[in-house]
Amino acid sequence: MPEFIVILQEPKHEGNVGAVARCMKNFGFDKLYLVNSCKLGDECFKRSKHAKNIILNAKKFDTLDEALKQIDFIVGTSGIVNLNDKHHIRNPITPRQFVEYAKRLESEVGLLFGREDYGLYSEELLHCDLLVNIPASKKYPILNLSHSVAVILYELASADLNLKIKGHRKSSKFEREKLYEQFNNFLAEVDYPHHKREHTQILFRRLMGRATPSKWEFHTLMGVFARSSERSIKNHKRNKK
Amino acid sequence: MPEFIVILQEPKHEGNVGAVARCMKNFGFDKLYLVNSCKLGDECFKRSKHAKNIILNAKKFDTLDEALKQIDFIVGTSGIVNLNDKHHIRNPITPRQFVEYAKRLESEVGLLFGREDYGLYSEELLHCDLLVNIPASKKYPILNLSHSVAVILYELASADLNLKIKGHRKSSKFEREKLYEQFNNFLAEVDYPHHKREHTQILFRRLMGRATPSKWEFHTLMGVFARSSERSIKNHKRNKK
Repeated sequence: MPEFIVILQEPKHEGNVGAVARCMKNFGFDKLYLVNSCKLGDECFKRSKHAKNIILNAKKFDTLDEALKQIDFIVGTSGIVNLNDKHHIRNPITPRQFVEYAKRLESEVGLLFGREDYGLYSEELLHCDLLVNIPASKKYPILNLSHSVAVILYELASADLNLKIKGHRKSSKFEREKLYEQFNNFLAEVDYPHHKREHTQILFRRLMGRATPSKWEFHTLMGVFARSSERSIKNHKRNKK
Repeated sequence: MPEFIVILQEPKHEGNVGAVARCMKNFGFDKLYLVNSCKLGDECFKRSKHAKNIILNAKKFDTLDEALKQIDFIVGTSGIVNLNDKHHIRNPITPRQFVEYAKRLESEVGLLFGREDYGLYSEELLHCDLLVNIPASKKYPILNLSHSVAVILYELASADLNLKIKGHRKSSKFEREKLYEQFNNFLAEVDYPHHKREHTQILFRRLMGRATPSKWEFHTLMGVFARSSERSIKNHKRNKK
């Protein structure tokens, strides 16, 4: 299992931050990042109970970009599932499915939770390699922030560590970014319609996030797209003659 | 699945009762029994958010005996696991094991949660047909009341087919085979080395198997590769001229 960091994006109620810290300690997690957080005072510490140290040691950031800079793999949580699957930005898996993915991941994984009222904005979801949604009643699917954290950490904590899949070496964030870049170039080379490009780029990123390619798979895919580029260049030269 | 009733034994903080109601509604449960409860006021209703009706419709009892009288099967929840299994009163199963058990139960099942500070007393545990304990850190195993409720209802809800998130329509086997064929054509078009093709085809198939593309993602990827083919044909024609 990788190391998990709980990241709260612009939490508004200090009591919730305290409750999150408590359930982190309950399930054996201790790294907390706070982005542009509300002020943390008595209510926060009261609700955190025996997890005050998690609050005291939390890293604080002004912007999400800063907080995510060092983290290899970002998992967003979303209370809103878009039933129209054209909006693949919000195309999530369940916490239980996530546990299976998590077993294959290495190093640090950020678990990103949005604001109490609006969750994560679309531009924030773009940072995410994977989206997780807690299956809930259609009538009222929005869980309290700390309850969402509790459910996801509970699932991770319940996963049997001994069952760890001896995985292939995973591609790094740097490699994945290279692959996305290569894919973008490929779209340009094949004259893929401009208005569709961004969506298709995100779609590819999410697909790869779910598939978590190994280093070997990464190099093969890079080779495939590179091959296509070489052909393009060759044709281009030939046409010029 | 039977019908579940959440029973709070002597809750002390009205905010917790509100939070319990909210997560009941989140997971599609609505029957709440309160035994010798604290006074429920503004804080309770505020925390219940859109689940005020659950609070308003909660049945109130003075004693646990009264509350449990009509209920067929009682499940107690306990934050304290006695590692000495001679104390079979506190010899619990996990929430996930409970779900399997619950599937076989009928009629009404009471989920009994204790006080915030002392949980359920031994004499109260004697009422229980089964004990459920949420696996948590040995350093701090006592969850907040509403978090315990959330985890157990989440487990029950996840097993209930009616509550499963309306997932995205997955691509069919036929569609996936089409995609693999398209990918194979693409490899041919870019003159991908013959001796590497089979391996790369299998790799692509495995990646897609892990990513389980939705119908929409399938159509987008087909479009991307089709675009590449069109370009190839165009270039081919141009070269022939």
